[in-house]
This record gives sequence, C-alpha cells and structure tokens, in this order.
Amino acid sequence: MRFNYKVILNILGLLILLNGAFMMTCVPFSLYFGGKDLNALLISGASAMIIGYMIFALTQKNRSKDLKKKDGYLIVTLGWLSMSLFGTLPYILSGSIPDFTDAFFETISGFTTTGATILTDIEGLDKGILFWRSLTQWIGGMGIIVLAVAILPLLGIGGMQLFVAEAPGISPDKLKPRITETAKRLWFIYVALTLVEMILLWAGGMTFYDAINHALTTMATGGFSTKNASIAYYQSPFIQYVIIFFMFLAGTNFTVTYFALHGQFKTVLKNEEFRFYLIITFLVMTLISIGVYQTQGQGLELSIRQALFQVVSVITTTGYVTADYTQWPYEVVLLLFVLMFVGASAGSTAGGVKIVRHLILVKNSILELKRQLHPSAILPVRFNGKAVHKDITFNILAFIMIYISIFAFGSILVSFIGVDFMTSISAVATCLGNIGPGLGNVGPVDHFGEIPVLAKWVLSILMLLGRLELFTVLILFTPYFWKKV
Amino acid sequence: MRFNYKVILNILGLLILLNGAFMMTCVPFSLYFGGKDLNALLISGASAMIIGYMIFALTQKNRSKDLKKKDGYLIVTLGWLSMSLFGTLPYILSGSIPDFTDAFFETISGFTTTGATILTDIEGLDKGILFWRSLTQWIGGMGIIVLAVAILPLLGIGGMQLFVAEAPGISPDKLKPRITETAKRLWFIYVALTLVEMILLWAGGMTFYDAINHALTTMATGGFSTKNASIAYYQSPFIQYVIIFFMFLAGTNFTVTYFALHGQFKTVLKNEEFRFYLIITFLVMTLISIGVYQTQGQGLELSIRQALFQVVSVITTTGYVTADYTQWPYEVVLLLFVLMFVGASAGSTAGGVKIVRHLILVKNSILELKRQLHPSAILPVRFNGKAVHKDITFNILAFIMIYISIFAFGSILVSFIGVDFMTSISAVATCLGNIGPGLGNVGPVDHFGEIPVLAKWVLSILMLLGRLELFTVLILFTPYFWKKV
Repeated sequence: MRFNYKVILNILGLLILLNGAFMMTCVPFSLYFGGKDLNALLISGASAMIIGYMIFALTQKNRSKDLKKKDGYLIVTLGWLSMSLFGTLPYILSGSIPDFTDAFFETISGFTTTGATILTDIEGLDKGILFWRSLTQWIGGMGIIVLAVAILPLLGIGGMQLFVAEAPGISPDKLKPRITETAKRLWFIYVALTLVEMILLWAGGMTFYDAINHALTTMATGGFSTKNASIAYYQSPFIQYVIIFFMFLAGTNFTVTYFALHGQFKTVLKNEEFRFYLIITFLVMTLISIGVYQTQGQGLELSIRQALFQVVSVITTTGYVTADYTQWPYEVVLLLFVLMFVGASAGSTAGGVKIVRHLILVKNSILELKRQLHPSAILPVRFNGKAVHKDITFNILAFIMIYISIFAFGSILVSFIGVDFMTSISAVATCLGNIGPGLGNVGPVDHFGEIPVLAKWVLSILMLLGRLELFTVLILFTPYFWKKV
Repeated sequence: MRFNYKVILNILGLLILLNGAFMMTCVPFSLYFGGKDLNALLISGASAMIIGYMIFALTQKNRSKDLKKKDGYLIVTLGWLSMSLFGTLPYILSGSIPDFTDAFFETISGFTTTGATILTDIEGLDKGILFWRSLTQWIGGMGIIVLAVAILPLLGIGGMQLFVAEAPGISPDKLKPRITETAKRLWFIYVALTLVEMILLWAGGMTFYDAINHALTTMATGGFSTKNASIAYYQSPFIQYVIIFFMFLAGTNFTVTYFALHGQFKTVLKNEEFRFYLIITFLVMTLISIGVYQTQGQGLELSIRQALFQVVSVITTTGYVTADYTQWPYEVVLLLFVLMFVGASAGSTAGGVKIVRHLILVKNSILELKRQLHPSAILPVRFNGKAVHKDITFNILAFIMIYISIFAFGSILVSFIGVDFMTSISAVATCLGNIGPGLGNVGPVDHFGEIPVLAKWVLSILMLLGRLELFTVLILFTPYFWKKV
C-alpha cells in the first residue's frame, strides 16, 4: 500500500472530534450573552464530534502505527482542510456568514492564523460565533507549533531542520512520538502566555470577553479582532503596548522563549535569528516613525507607537491595526509591503518566509561572490556558529524562489479575475504571508468581502500554502508523490 | 601584485580611444544636417581619442599579457563606467544635456542598452548628437556579446557557462583570446542583422537617418528612438512588424541565430531556452491581446500587433512603445510588469534575469519537491538534455535571489528619495532589467527627467548592475576581492 490510509483517517477523525469539542467551548459565551447562535454552535459541535468520532472509531482497529513520511504530508494538508471545512458550520448554521465561499474563507483565514476577513460588521456577530472566530486562530497556532517543531523538520521542509535546536536524533523516515514531548512543552508556554496577556488586557480596561479574544488571536499571530476598528478601537497606550509585546513574543521562536523563561539569556542572545528579528523590527520602526511623525501632525510618542505597532503586526504576520497605514507616506507603505515578505521567527506561530531563511539567503549570496573567485573552495553558510549543510541551503533558496513565484503568479491570477493592481499584489502577499490586511481595497479599514468569489478561493489556497510552508501542499501535486514505491 | 593594473589600464585606454573614434562617426550626420553640434562632437571625439591613446601608449610597454580572473571583473566594470563617463562629453559640450547627472544617466542608459531617457524633446536634438545617443546602445550591444559569450562564462557568473554551447576547454583562470574568435563570428551576425533591418525600415518608409538609428537601437535591445512618440510615431504595420521581428532576433541567443543562418534548424529547435522564449512570448501576447481587444475599442489586428509589440519589447528588454500600455486594463499592466523580470535569452543583447535562469529555477523547484521525498537521491537539473552541475544551479538561484533583493531594496531606496510607489518599483524594475520605460511617472509617454537627482544616480548604478549580471560589479565591493592572495 502506498499510504497508510487507515491511520491518516484515524488522525483526521481525531482532529475533527477535537474541533467539535472546541466549538462546544463557545457555548458558555453564547449562553452568557444570550445570542441567537446557541443552536448553531450546539449542532455544529455535536456534528463534528459525532462524525469525527465515527471516523476515528472505524479506523481504530488493526491500524498499523507505522507512519511514513508521505503519510505526514497528507495528514498535515488534509488536517488543515478538514478542520477548515467543519469550522464553517457555526458560521453557516447561525446565518452569520450564510455563503459557503465566505464562510470557508473566514474559517481558513482563522485556522491559518491569517486574519483576513470578509465581514463588514464584526461587532454585529453573536458573541459565541465571534469567540469561535478567535478560537480558530488559536487552534491554528497550536497546530503550527507541532508542525514547526516536530513535523516539518522530519519532512525536511524549507530547512526547518535548522530552526529547531532540540530535534536531533529523530529517525528521518518515521513520525515518532517525540512530537508529544516537545509540543507539550511549547504548548504550555503558548497557553500560559495567552493567559498572562488576557489578564493584562483585562486589567488594562478591556472587557473580559474582549481580553480573552484578543489574547487568543495575538498569541496565534492571527489578528482577528472583536472590534470593527481592530486595535484602533482601544486608544489606551497600555493595551497597545501589551499587544505589541505579546505579538513580538508570538513571533519569537518558542524554544527561544523557553530558554528565556528558564533564565538562559545568553542562549537567547546567541540566537542569530532572534538578534536579527530585534534589529529589523527596530530599524524599520525607526524609519517609519520618522515618516509618520513628519507627515501625520501628531505627537512623537503616538507616531512611534503607531509605527511600532504596525511594524510588529506585519513582521509577526498578525495583522492587527491601530492606524490606517495606507494614508501614510508612500515610502512607508512600500516598506510595510516589503515587510510582508519577511515574516518573524521560525518555530513561532508567525507565517511568511521567516527571518532565518532571509539570513541564510543573504549569507549565501555574499558567499556566492566569494565562491566566484575561488570555485574549488568549499564555503558553507554558517548559522548560529555551525556550518549549514549545502542541501539545506539549497532547499531554503528553492523555498524562497517558490514563494516569490507563487506571489507573482497569484497576483497575476487574482488581477485577471478582476481585481486592481495594488489590491491584487497586496491581497496575495498578505494571504500567502498569513498576515491579514493589505493595501488598496483590502486595506486596514477595508475587508475581503467585495473580492470576486474565484479570487476568494485562490486566496484561501494561498493562505493554506503559506501556512504549511509551501512544500507540504505542493508535493501532493507531483506525480511521484502518488507513485508506488 | 594583486592586479595587473598595467594591462587593465591598457585595455581601458583602448576602449576610450575606440569610444572617441565612434563619436567621430557622428560627424557626417552633423555635417549633412548642418546642426550646431559639430564642434561638440569633434572636441569630444578628439579628447576621448587623445586621452585614450595616451593611457594606451603609456601602458603598452613591458605589460605582462597574463590576465587573471580578478582583472577581468575590474576591466568589465571600469570599462563600462569609463565609456559612460567619456560618452557624456557630446551631450555636455553641445549643451543638449548640460547637467552632468542627466548626461550620465542618458549615457549609461545607452551603453547598458537600457533606453530610459531624461529627454523631453528628443526630436529637438541635433542629428549628430541624436545619432551618438543611438550609437551608445549599439556599442553597448557589441560589448554585451563579448561579455556573454566570452568573458562571463570564464568568470563563472550566474551560470553563464551553461548558455554558451561553444565555450568548452577554456582555461578557467586566464582570459585567453578565444574571445576574439567567437566574438568576431557573432559580431558579424550583429552587424549584418543591423544592416538588413536598416534596409527594411528604409524600404518601409522611414528616412535613411531614422532607419539607421532604429536599426542600431533594435539590435542592441536598447530602445532609444529618434521620435518623441517612440515607434508609435510610425503607424505603418510593416515597420512595426519588422521591428518586432528584429527585437525578437536581438533577444535570441546569437549562437542560436548562427545555427539558424547555417540552416541547422534542428539544433535551433532543440534549444530549450529558445523554445520557452517562443512559448512565453506567444502566451503572454495572447493574454494581452484579449485584454486590449476587449477594452480599447480597436480592431483585432491592431490589438494583436500592439500586444505583440509591447510583449516583445519588454521581454527582450528593448523598451520601444507603440501604445501607452498604462492605459490598458490593470491585469495587462501587471502582466507586463512581471514580464520585466523575465528577460529574453542569454547570449543575446537582452538584459534582465533571462529565460534560461527561470527554466533552471522552475526545474529545480520541481526537483526540490522530489528531493524532499528522496533525500539521499542525487537529482540534478537537466538543461538541453544534459545534467547541470549543482554549483551552477546554486549560482543561478543565488543570482535570482540577489536580483530580487536588489529590486526590493532599490525600490525602497528610490521611494525614500521621494518617488511614489508605482513609479519607484517600476523605475527600479525597468532600469535593473535594462528595459527603459516603466509605469507611473516613468511610463511610456513619460520620461525620467523629473526624478530626483539622487534617484537618477541610484537608477544609473542599477542599470550597470543589471547589465553586468550583478556579480561582476558586486564582487568589487567584497573585502576578499581586494585581499592579497
């Protein structure tokens, strides 16, 4: 047999079951606020749990536990897809998003932690549904952590081997349950930080409900807000700084945070990716602050805060906004656009290319010039003091090239569907990078609702592609993936 | 000694001398049309010839003929720079472009066969100067042929080894005079095609003067026209089709043309790059034709001709225009913008990334997915039926990445100087790709005159970088280039 279909279905069943259970956690909010979404949530949750359990139970017996690499790709892609499919139920059944395309867009935007929305009036949603919307992002973030620290390095994707310091000695052809160890440790950090942020936001003046929602979507670098104006609704500097801090944390490699929490600051500062994450954020923030301060006729602190907020929001691929940055000077807009291609740290919940890949790229480019002069010398890229295997560097270059190609083709495709230049390129960049808002008609004070249906599907696929580090999905479309061994 | 300065200067002297001689060929046009540019041309030509000869003569004695690789990089970069520097003389002395920045921009735009112009009234120029302007592109084209077939493969730049079928057995560390053999053969084709095109254009109704000018700038894929409206001035379909045909030829690998002229059509069609050059041109032309036909309210033939003209003009990095494509639907504009990053064939006079590099990139990307599944298998990219060495593939990936990085940083830089978003990104793309016109304020019916001075310098450097395949110039800025062996 080419694939271990039984185990794949078994795991998918479990995921759908869990998805239903998560839907049930929205019920208390529906009850408390007395929304009309109660039945929809109960039916959705129950259906997902029943169907999930049935699939799980039917495949439980006599399944071989021997998962192969190829099974891994299928599980990851189908996992995200089936979660997104079942995740549409609460929206559709409650009538809050009756259209399937829109509901799927909103759900996959959630599970991929993108944060692009088709909703015009977010505040008009029932509170249970609204909580489900935030929760999809938080669940997506949990998925990403397992993916980044445990699954992708095993599948050898995009140099993810590099980024996980504590993933050595894993047998390269089997998905073994080291997953649980590492993931559990980092999940604990994820959950704890979500709680701490929630308390701080609550203390800062948010309602308990808004605090929990924003904490969920910050730590996932998701960016769904419960307010139409996103974080611009909250003019409190305290709230904004708290969110900036936790967005930055969410964009930090969770193993780095783990070391920081254990007081090993030397290890933290030795991490090259983290250093450059700090440097890039600081540099771009400074440039943008100047631009904003000079043109927007507002105080220095506000200018810096707005600049910092937007820079951290974009680099961590969160997508919250505190200001309509499309009104800022065009060099600032261009800088934010380019920043969409940076992405924060690998091993965090952030999407996009990620800083470590850019680092390897820049280092390799400089070395390539040296190689030109000394063609016979072996000059490997060094990262965190260690030589990076040429195959990994090669893989990273290929990743970035494919990323850019998908961006270019995606932009052309979306514009051919009938979307203008600026909206096309920014919608594709923001969806592929799992950020959220873009420029043009999908800018920070706008939404994706008016985009043509076909474009919504293209963008949905791009969100999934970007979130699953391209290769995981793309490989399913190659003939050799389906060939018998 | 680290460098063979004497030989480097000797060659530069010779180049400047030749440059002066070329200026003298403009004198007959000045005399015939009775322009006020006669003295300027004579003085410029004489100065360049005298200074060039002096440098040449002073370095002629006792010079070792042993050129090293490192000398090659210096000769190429300094060669283009000194040609551009001396090339400004006719403009400045005649007062037609009194400002040095503008004159340098126009000259380097010529020698790099870019075709971006700062001039508002091209037709107002004296005919001798105008001929010089066209001639700089044709000289640049000659330089590119030597560079592409003889020098770059030796320097091991951007996989240029791949593209030249007949460059085997060259010792990798010495610039040996195989240059002359291959270059002479291809120069002959270049000169012959220029003559044929000139005759056809003349026969088609252009004046003799305009025919020669346009033939010079077509074959160089330069794009300088003698008319303010570029080729849109000539509504004759015959003239436009002739120019389309010769632009396409100029963007074809000259060794392929060589085989075609010798009747070896099988060899021609076996060439993968040529096949894809044809396919891409045809595909994009079809898409754009539809867009133009549907929206511009004009006949089918005209729509196809305009689409074909613009596509060939952009893909070959020529930069002539027959229609203001910025008025076309935005998906067409975006497509033309992306086409700016394609470039025609290696071994032609076209600039940009070049199709062969894209081919290797795409093939490698697909293979990288396969490598993911079979990490231990050795899966080299195949081009023209042969396995491409991994180092070359690596080098090509690095080239494209550096190209895109320079595009991104250049765009940010230019926009920070005070140029709007669309103008910045398209000016950088068009200059780096040696095309000519862009979008926004540097669109096909506009010019680069209004761009800030600093941005003109940035764009000038980008033209040189693009033309010399990045590495040749960039390597000069590395510390190890200047290190003693």
